[in-house]
Amino acid sequence: MKDGKEEKKWQGKPDKMLQDFGSEITADIHGKRPPRFKTVARTRSNIIFDKKQGFLVLGRSQEERNFINVAQSKRFMQTVAIAAKCNKFIKENLHTTIRGLFYQLKYSLGEDVDENIFNEQAESNPLIEDLEASLGIKREELNLNANRKGVLAGNMKVIDRFGGERIETNTSKMGRSGWTIPSDVDNDIEFVDVKAKYVLVCEKDALWQRLNEDGFWKKENCILISPQGQAARGARRIIRKLADKGLPVYVFNDGDAWGWYIYWTIKTGSMNLAYIGGEIATPEARFIGVTMSDLERYEFLKKMTLKATEVDLKRAQEMLNYPWINMHKEWVNELKMVLKLKVKLEQDTLQGPKLTFVDDYIKEKIRDRDFLP
Amino acid sequence: MKDGKEEKKWQGKPDKMLQDFGSEITADIHGKRPPRFKTVARTRSNIIFDKKQGFLVLGRSQEERNFINVAQSKRFMQTVAIAAKCNKFIKENLHTTIRGLFYQLKYSLGEDVDENIFNEQAESNPLIEDLEASLGIKREELNLNANRKGVLAGNMKVIDRFGGERIETNTSKMGRSGWTIPSDVDNDIEFVDVKAKYVLVCEKDALWQRLNEDGFWKKENCILISPQGQAARGARRIIRKLADKGLPVYVFNDGDAWGWYIYWTIKTGSMNLAYIGGEIATPEARFIGVTMSDLERYEFLKKMTLKATEVDLKRAQEMLNYPWINMHKEWVNELKMVLKLKVKLEQDTLQGPKLTFVDDYIKEKIRDRDFLP
Repeated sequence: MKDGKEEKKWQGKPDKMLQDFGSEITADIHGKRPPRFKTVARTRSNIIFDKKQGFLVLGRSQEERNFINVAQSKRFMQTVAIAAKCNKFIKENLHTTIRGLFYQLKYSLGEDVDENIFNEQAESNPLIEDLEASLGIKREELNLNANRKGVLAGNMKVIDRFGGERIETNTSKMGRSGWTIPSDVDNDIEFVDVKAKYVLVCEKDALWQRLNEDGFWKKENCILISPQGQAARGARRIIRKLADKGLPVYVFNDGDAWGWYIYWTIKTGSMNLAYIGGEIATPEARFIGVTMSDLERYEFLKKMTLKATEVDLKRAQEMLNYPWINMHKEWVNELKMVLKLKVKLEQDTLQGPKLTFVDDYIKEKIRDRDFLP
Repeated sequence: MKDGKEEKKWQGKPDKMLQDFGSEITADIHGKRPPRFKTVARTRSNIIFDKKQGFLVLGRSQEERNFINVAQSKRFMQTVAIAAKCNKFIKENLHTTIRGLFYQLKYSLGEDVDENIFNEQAESNPLIEDLEASLGIKREELNLNANRKGVLAGNMKVIDRFGGERIETNTSKMGRSGWTIPSDVDNDIEFVDVKAKYVLVCEKDALWQRLNEDGFWKKENCILISPQGQAARGARRIIRKLADKGLPVYVFNDGDAWGWYIYWTIKTGSMNLAYIGGEIATPEARFIGVTMSDLERYEFLKKMTLKATEVDLKRAQEMLNYPWINMHKEWVNELKMVLKLKVKLEQDTLQGPKLTFVDDYIKEKIRDRDFLP
């Protein structure tokens, strides 16, 4: 929420924010004013690419949620119920998911009321985002876990204060498994003794396993992360935190619109998470490959292409329209090559000549600083 | 492959098997006999529920793959190419996925041949299964990693001989993350000092995190596993191995056809993996819930149901037709209740009354031995 920092209304710890949020509403009621609160508009027109900072943020457009408004009163009541539950979770020092929250709300009206607060989880999700955007904090601080995905290995330590213990994990001693990136990498958890030269993000777990087996991160002294497909909030956040420690971030994904978009969500954030853009984007990230230009650099790749589907091509076309992508001539060139050649190149292809060729490929790209912006 | 044990032709380590397999083919060629090999038929009619052992296996029906047969010669050549690659992987002591294997094969015909061995990975998958079934071993022994998924916590240690190191991991010291279950839990890896009373399998990672936060596995002294949805080969295999150590296995899943089928694949194996049924099935497993009968036991659940979709109902109907399921009157009753009430109950509902209610639910069910078979 860097962009809106000067307007940040709520201060202090999340439970204090929630209590202040509630106090203001009760004060409105007691003062016979219509209860209301403000949130930042998360509509498409208010999602802005901040060119200077290099990531997607919400603009200054605000929306008011007003209880004395027939179109809004149900949603208002629902948001207040969510805030009350989150306050309870923080007090209990327990976490759940938005699905767990949904069922607590479904339960909470009791036997004697013949209506549920929510009938569908789809109703509660945007309201949690309303609350996050309104308070200017992340759901993880409201004790709500997001889906987690992602694995990490490298020379660093995790200090996890969990279940009344202080658990120290050396992520260079995780063997074939790697360390599972949790949902929340901010609260009661620290990353220390990071002794690495860079962060390598590798889209697919299969390739992460390949590189891990080769001891790539040991030999190269890097932190090897796989988001295991599209990066979850926890994975994006840990990449951001490692970049904050001064480590360059290189991303190695499939050579198609999907793999490239995974890179872009890591780099600039994504539209649906623009309300926490500054927290999860890593504009410093550079793209190693796979690129269409690799077809020139590595002759054998010409026979390793797969045919791009209609959906692949449509997605590439869409990406050409995003201003944060089409400002880079290198990316326009890549996307246009996809549309022209109608092919894709999976990162798995780099195992073709020999299983360890993928190691050589990454090392060469980094040595030559052959990156896309 | 317990059922076909007496017919097991290939003996010794996987690389020896592959070499003997190759030698037999070259001997056929030198002896001017048509090269051929036998594999167990994996057709639906040869998938049998072994009532005595309690899991799905392949029957005795065999199929011959013959090179001198226009319909089979391409597939034959492809299978031999796969065997040669796997032999190479074992010699190199490197692992890859079937996707990596596919690209090695795609690469290997060289520039001068204008045809690829495989055009689609879909072509290579059944041939890997042919090879597994023919040799009577698992793909993991051919250095092929399957997709991995699943997390574990509890009082035990993992000894992972990996990357030239002997890595010891205490799975009771994994904090919020848990230990990632790898693809291969058999080769160069051991599970020791298993100090637990039972194994609790919990379908959803969200609930695993909930239970992990409560220290459920500490208080109850169990091994807490989430397959994170449908169980991958590695997760099924580790459950089997823990059952082999004498631990009872209890499964806690969603109360719908999908959650229940995840239980059944853990218990009896699945049709597409019947060729390794004895290795991955855990017939000793018992189902804790969520059940439709829970609607009677826990009054509040009546208002926590979701409407079952047409697809949910169709799947429940299909499950009624599986002989290994409909032999149990308790399960017939459950499935019929779904069809009658047209509802489902997610395991997340058990967080409704309070977040830790899910702990109480599991403890009560185990205390009362209120399981489904």
